Amino acid sequence: MTAPPTFTLFLVFLCSSLHAEGVPPTAPVAIAIHAGAGTIKRDELSSEAEAEIRATLEKAVRAGHAALTSGQPGVEAVRAAVNILEDSPLFNAGKGAVFNARAQNELDASIMDGASLNAGAVAALKRVRNPIDLAISVMNQSRHVMMIGVGAEQFAIEQGFELVDPSYFHTDHRLEQLRERQADEQANVKQDEAWYSTVGAVVLDQSGNLAAGTSTGGLTNKRWGRIGDTPIIGAGNYANNNGCAVSATGTGEYFIRHVVAHSICMRVAGGQAIAEAADRLIFDTLLPDGGDGGVIAMDPKGEIAFSFNTAGMYRASIDRNGKLYVGIYANE
Amino acid sequence: MTAPPTFTLFLVFLCSSLHAEGVPPTAPVAIAIHAGAGTIKRDELSSEAEAEIRATLEKAVRAGHAALTSGQPGVEAVRAAVNILEDSPLFNAGKGAVFNARAQNELDASIMDGASLNAGAVAALKRVRNPIDLAISVMNQSRHVMMIGVGAEQFAIEQGFELVDPSYFHTDHRLEQLRERQADEQANVKQDEAWYSTVGAVVLDQSGNLAAGTSTGGLTNKRWGRIGDTPIIGAGNYANNNGCAVSATGTGEYFIRHVVAHSICMRVAGGQAIAEAADRLIFDTLLPDGGDGGVIAMDPKGEIAFSFNTAGMYRASIDRNGKLYVGIYANE
Repeated sequence: MTAPPTFTLFLVFLCSSLHAEGVPPTAPVAIAIHAGAGTIKRDELSSEAEAEIRATLEKAVRAGHAALTSGQPGVEAVRAAVNILEDSPLFNAGKGAVFNARAQNELDASIMDGASLNAGAVAALKRVRNPIDLAISVMNQSRHVMMIGVGAEQFAIEQGFELVDPSYFHTDHRLEQLRERQADEQANVKQDEAWYSTVGAVVLDQSGNLAAGTSTGGLTNKRWGRIGDTPIIGAGNYANNNGCAVSATGTGEYFIRHVVAHSICMRVAGGQAIAEAADRLIFDTLLPDGGDGGVIAMDPKGEIAFSFNTAGMYRASIDRNGKLYVGIYANE
Repeated sequence: MTAPPTFTLFLVFLCSSLHAEGVPPTAPVAIAIHAGAGTIKRDELSSEAEAEIRATLEKAVRAGHAALTSGQPGVEAVRAAVNILEDSPLFNAGKGAVFNARAQNELDASIMDGASLNAGAVAALKRVRNPIDLAISVMNQSRHVMMIGVGAEQFAIEQGFELVDPSYFHTDHRLEQLRERQADEQANVKQDEAWYSTVGAVVLDQSGNLAAGTSTGGLTNKRWGRIGDTPIIGAGNYANNNGCAVSATGTGEYFIRHVVAHSICMRVAGGQAIAEAADRLIFDTLLPDGGDGGVIAMDPKGEIAFSFNTAGMYRASIDRNGKLYVGIYANE
C-alpha cells in the first residue's frame, strides 16, 4: 500500500516542524532504583530518617536519569545512580555496608549491558570505595566476568583505582547491628533478617539498550567469604535487550537457587508482561520457599515493575514520560 | 475401560514372579559425566594416554552408577564420580588443576539437588583436596550457598576437612602449560584455549531426583581471583526436577553471560526435548557469540544429552538401561 501524496507531504511537514523546534526527537529513557527491602513499619522510622532516605533516593534516580537524557549509555547511568547509593551511609552498599561475622566489611557488585550481554562482577572486596565501578572495569577492561577478593583489588590498582582503608566502610550503627545480631545468636533468639539493603538500578538508554547494576555489603553476621546473589549474573542482576533488566534485593541464597533475575527475563522474552513476570517469581516461587525480598525490573520499552514480598522496599523511578516516583512502603 | 479378568490375573502373576526373584522393582537410574571439551585431534593423543583417559572416565561413571544402584541419593552419586575425576591428574580439577597467572592453583566447584533446589558452591580454594566435597558441605551444613577463598577454607576446617598443602595440586605438565602460555602471551601469539577441562556429573537417582555437580581448576593463566562459570549456580551447573540437570565445560565467561545451565532447564521445563534444548544453547547461542565448550544434561526420565561445539569432549554415561558409553571425539 502506498500512502497518498497529500499524506506523505503532511508527514514531511510534521517531521520538519518537530525538528524546527530545535529538540531532536530522542528515544524515551527510563530508570528505576532500589536500596533494599524488608520488614520496615511506619512507626519504626522517624520522619527525619524517612525524609533523608527519600531525598537520597530522589538524588540517585535523578543522577541516573540526567546521565540518560544527556545521551550516556545505560551502564554509565547505572553507575551514576548506584554511586550515590554506595556513598550514602544510609544503605548497605559501599559506605554503610553491614559487617560480617568477623566484624569486617566485604562488598559485592555486578553490572550487565543488555545490548552485548557483557557483564562484570566482583565479590569480597575490602578496599574498593565503589564496587560497581570495579565491576564495570572488570567488564570493560578484562577478559573475565568475575573477580574476587585480593586478586580483584590487585586488578583495581592496575586500573588506577585508589583503594581506601577498610575502616572507610565502618559505621557505628552497622557495628551495633552486628553486636545485637551476635547477641541474639548466642541467646538463640530467632533471627529474621529485618532488612536486606542491597542497592541497584535498571535503565533504558537513548539507544534502546537496557542495563542493570547491583551493589551490596551482603548479610549482617555473614560468614567470612560468603557470597550472596548480588555478584551472581542471573541471580541478583541480569540485563538482556531481548528480555529485561533486573536488580534484586533479599535473601540472596533463594535468589541464587531460583536464578531469579534470569528467570524473570526469560518469562518476558517469552511474552509475559514485566510486572506479571516479576510477581510470579517474587510471590509464587520465592515466597512459598521462604525467600524474602524483591526486584526492580524494566522491559525493552522502559516499562517498570517494582515487586516485593516484604512490607517495604526503598525505591524510586523516573519513567519514560519523565514522571518521578519515590516509595518506601508497600501501599504508596 | 476395565481390563479383562484374565489379563488382570496375568499382571498379578507377572508382578509376583518379578518379586519372587528377590529383585525389588527399582526405578531407573542414570548418570553422565564429562571431564572437559576442546580442540583435541586424534593424532595429538597417544594411544596410551587415550586408553588411560577412557579407563578413568569408565571408573568414574561406574562409581557414580554403583552409588545410584545401591540407593544412595543423587548428590552422593555425583560426589563419587567427581571425586575420581578430581583425584586423577589427567583432568583440570582437584589434582591436575591448571595454574593461574601467579603459578598458583585456585579451585572452584558447585553442587545442586534437583529435588530441593538446595545448592552449594565454593571458589578460589587453594587447600581443599576435593572441592566438590566442600560444595556439598556448604549446601548441607551452612545457611549459605556460596563461600570463597580463605573464609571457605576456614569453614572446611570447622567441618572436619583435612586441608592439603597447596603443593598437592602442582603437576609438572600443568606448570609447563602455564609457561608456554605466558611465553605465547609475551610473544603476542594468538591464544586459543585448546582445552577446557572442567569435570562434572549429572544423575537421576532411585527416588527420581536429579542432581548436578561440577569441579574445576579454571583457565590456565587466569588472573588471580578470577571465577568462571563452574561455581555459578545457573551458569555452569544447575539441577531442578522440574526441568533438568546440567554440568558445563568451556569458556566460562560466555556460559555466565548466557546463564547456560538454567536456560537449558527452562527450555526443558517448557516442553523442549533435552538434546534439542542443549544443542540450541551450545550451537545457536554460544557458538555465534564465540563461546566454546559443551554440556552434559539429563531430563527427569534419565534421558541423556551430550552437546558440544568443540572437536571433542571427554565423556561417559550409563543410561537408564544400564548401557555404558565412553567417548572422546565428536563422531563416536
